[in-house]
Amino acid sequence: MLEIICVGNELLIGKTLNTNAHWLAKHVTSLGLTVRRITVTRDEVDEIASVLREALKRKPRFIITTGGLGPTFDDKTLEGIARGLNLKLHVNQKALDMVKEKYESYLKQGHIDRVELTPARVKMATLPERAEPLPNGVGTAPGILLRVDTTSIIALPGVPPEMEAIFEESVVPLIRKEAGKSGFFERSIYTDRIMESTLAPLIDQAMRDNPRVYIKSHVYTEGTQQSSEGKPHIEVHFSTVAHTSKNASKRLDKAIASLSKLIEDHGGRVKAAQDS
Amino acid sequence: MLEIICVGNELLIGKTLNTNAHWLAKHVTSLGLTVRRITVTRDEVDEIASVLREALKRKPRFIITTGGLGPTFDDKTLEGIARGLNLKLHVNQKALDMVKEKYESYLKQGHIDRVELTPARVKMATLPERAEPLPNGVGTAPGILLRVDTTSIIALPGVPPEMEAIFEESVVPLIRKEAGKSGFFERSIYTDRIMESTLAPLIDQAMRDNPRVYIKSHVYTEGTQQSSEGKPHIEVHFSTVAHTSKNASKRLDKAIASLSKLIEDHGGRVKAAQDS
Repeated sequence: MLEIICVGNELLIGKTLNTNAHWLAKHVTSLGLTVRRITVTRDEVDEIASVLREALKRKPRFIITTGGLGPTFDDKTLEGIARGLNLKLHVNQKALDMVKEKYESYLKQGHIDRVELTPARVKMATLPERAEPLPNGVGTAPGILLRVDTTSIIALPGVPPEMEAIFEESVVPLIRKEAGKSGFFERSIYTDRIMESTLAPLIDQAMRDNPRVYIKSHVYTEGTQQSSEGKPHIEVHFSTVAHTSKNASKRLDKAIASLSKLIEDHGGRVKAAQDS
Repeated sequence: MLEIICVGNELLIGKTLNTNAHWLAKHVTSLGLTVRRITVTRDEVDEIASVLREALKRKPRFIITTGGLGPTFDDKTLEGIARGLNLKLHVNQKALDMVKEKYESYLKQGHIDRVELTPARVKMATLPERAEPLPNGVGTAPGILLRVDTTSIIALPGVPPEMEAIFEESVVPLIRKEAGKSGFFERSIYTDRIMESTLAPLIDQAMRDNPRVYIKSHVYTEGTQQSSEGKPHIEVHFSTVAHTSKNASKRLDKAIASLSKLIEDHGGRVKAAQDS
């Protein structure tokens, strides 16, 4: 079980689409862990602290935060984490070395005239006590890892390529260790000539017959102004968690065959099957 | 103050990008209200009930939920709301009339052979006590409005065109009444030849000089693998809440001019100004 906390006013004023949460949810799920909740919060220390404390009470194995690690006044995630956990902030030498090394490379690339560790730059190496910095292969601000009881708190930057790079390098190995060999497998079929309300009891029946497969219908809105019931194009999504893709395929095949038959018996048409 | 709660496993497995939260946040903000938090939760009655109760404790003026109003077994939002508030669910006659009218129109359009109020269809009219249905101009499932103390809880469908239609028709008037005449105004400039860590103290100074304007830098990643500090293309976003666009413009102009001068004094280049 894992929770995601995204920090940033830009997400709450509708300026930025939250592609980070989507990317993380997809990758975490495919590694076999369940994302239980995503919370988006403002750039306010007390709000971040509250959201973190609330998440910790639910005892997830991981909490991943995105955003708020940069050099500006409104990058407040580390301060929020420290307040939420009653930890002090201090300059972490390992993180400071990482930051310094980055500015040395920017100097070589001609982006800056000299390496100067201004307060804004030192801020990126100012971590809650006990936090470990995670190297940022793409940008400047390190991520952090901080263990509290049975939860690993991981803070990642908000800039997508930086977030993704730290996730791939430092977070994937941690999640793999936890999730073991199980993986998430999914497949979809598309139907028409049947309404979602007619499909509903058929899905119930297919799930009773295939208890390890989760089946969910989604109204398929390719254009605009299409509705579930007005123009019935529906995606039916089948998913399962399994140790091998062979087992997963067997289960998904069986569920798809049984629901497809039910749909056709009720006058619907199964348009296409698609691996995703 | 307003909170958004999005219900749907598809958002937590990274299948669906949460464009509903983005659309709502943008529209609510432009109407002059502040979105304080967005929570994404699973299709589980107890989870929905918990998330709702937690949000109510923060006493927002509005809570808007998306998703989970349809006819299938995993459309659980109304059950979750009822459990969260200790209310009973019952068939709402007004909602049932709305649903019935829709199926009559689908019959006329030839999508169905006869109007039959199956359990899956009656489910869409089964609301928590005291809830008022909100007409769905695009699809079948009505939205709902339910007042609890000083909070108005509004449940909207997850299909984007349906969510948007009910919001425009029934929710905008409620928010306007609350927000009065204030509106949210924003503008951006783009800079390069300056790093975010150099910009940080300049933004601090511009915000001290322009206390009613909020200024936030965003790293501009047009391609991939660009980083805040490696390749310094930065958007600086200025926003303010004001009663008239004239007042807002005056404030934003002044803040943009003062920060632009600071950026140029520090060797940066202001590339373009853009209304958004």
